[in-house]
Amino acid sequence: MRNRTGPGRPRDPQLDAQVLAATQELLVSAGYQATTIAAVARRAGVVTTSIYRRWPGKRALVEDAIFALDGGHLPVPTGELRADLLAWTRLFLDAAAQPAARSAIPGLLSEYHDDRESYRRLLDRGEQPTRAALRELVIDAASRGRADAGCDVDALFEFLRGATLIRALTHGAGDADAFCARIADALLAVATTAGQRINPNQ
Amino acid sequence: MRNRTGPGRPRDPQLDAQVLAATQELLVSAGYQATTIAAVARRAGVVTTSIYRRWPGKRALVEDAIFALDGGHLPVPTGELRADLLAWTRLFLDAAAQPAARSAIPGLLSEYHDDRESYRRLLDRGEQPTRAALRELVIDAASRGRADAGCDVDALFEFLRGATLIRALTHGAGDADAFCARIADALLAVATTAGQRINPNQ
Repeated sequence: MRNRTGPGRPRDPQLDAQVLAATQELLVSAGYQATTIAAVARRAGVVTTSIYRRWPGKRALVEDAIFALDGGHLPVPTGELRADLLAWTRLFLDAAAQPAARSAIPGLLSEYHDDRESYRRLLDRGEQPTRAALRELVIDAASRGRADAGCDVDALFEFLRGATLIRALTHGAGDADAFCARIADALLAVATTAGQRINPNQ
Repeated sequence: MRNRTGPGRPRDPQLDAQVLAATQELLVSAGYQATTIAAVARRAGVVTTSIYRRWPGKRALVEDAIFALDGGHLPVPTGELRADLLAWTRLFLDAAAQPAARSAIPGLLSEYHDDRESYRRLLDRGEQPTRAALRELVIDAASRGRADAGCDVDALFEFLRGATLIRALTHGAGDADAFCARIADALLAVATTAGQRINPNQ
């Protein structure tokens, strides 16, 4: 067992990586419920206090492990909106379909059932860079006449996220080509249509 | 404790309803994990064998309890596609936002993690009448020139389901009017646009 992280010692990035990798592995091999701090510590070969020094609890650790999976790289815009939307759909699907993510997402959703604020924080954390980048992509396409500047980017994002998440949980990344092509086409329809003014009485 | 369900006695619809109601209540008050067959039996005032005679296990019971929540009534078509899509969006959101459903869905997703076939059966069961009815709605609108007959109804359904499910889990049914109006508008954009031919090489 490692013993490099006594109080007062500086954080050890290698230890962090080791703990995150152990968490990812356990999520896949043992499932969310069995991915406890104690089990992660055993697998990573560290003491639990080393983990608690860095993460307040299981939720935070699992969240970090899931975010560490996806390199955080969004597709580089190609100048062709349909191709860009296809790349985004693929990225969202692949991220949610990774075995550790598929194991963790329902588990986290379950824990957040009575804790909506944490859940929203999680979503916001995952969403922040992506929602803004999608908006930028669409604005840029609109400036070239390839999207409608008045389209509803929030709805676009919600469609993208919702459809890929359910698909990933039900089908994984299998047989994804046709699915992603269909979703990209339908997203393009949203991007090229002006959102109507909302009538709050409807 | 009721004692009306000895072996050989006919099924008792009132007992079924009592068990489903107890399941729904427990999902809300105690959460998915604590909603065990034993706890449901205690709350319903029946013996566990009465429950096992009717349901093979917890998953099946929770599924039935969730399906029993929603009366299974789809909106009556109005002849106006935007209004119909709005009614559908509201229905999906309200169904997923019911406290017992919000408690059960992540729990079931978590259990189905390693059992994709069951999960697909669940989705198919919930989907069958709705996906067909949505298709009929769109075909009818297309016959009146209000939708594109070549639009992608599957993508429409996946957008509707995914966006409302995530919204329900994160926000419940709160502040739903503006959300539903935006989603209905964006769904209308999909319904009025021909799906492109899928290029399997993409």
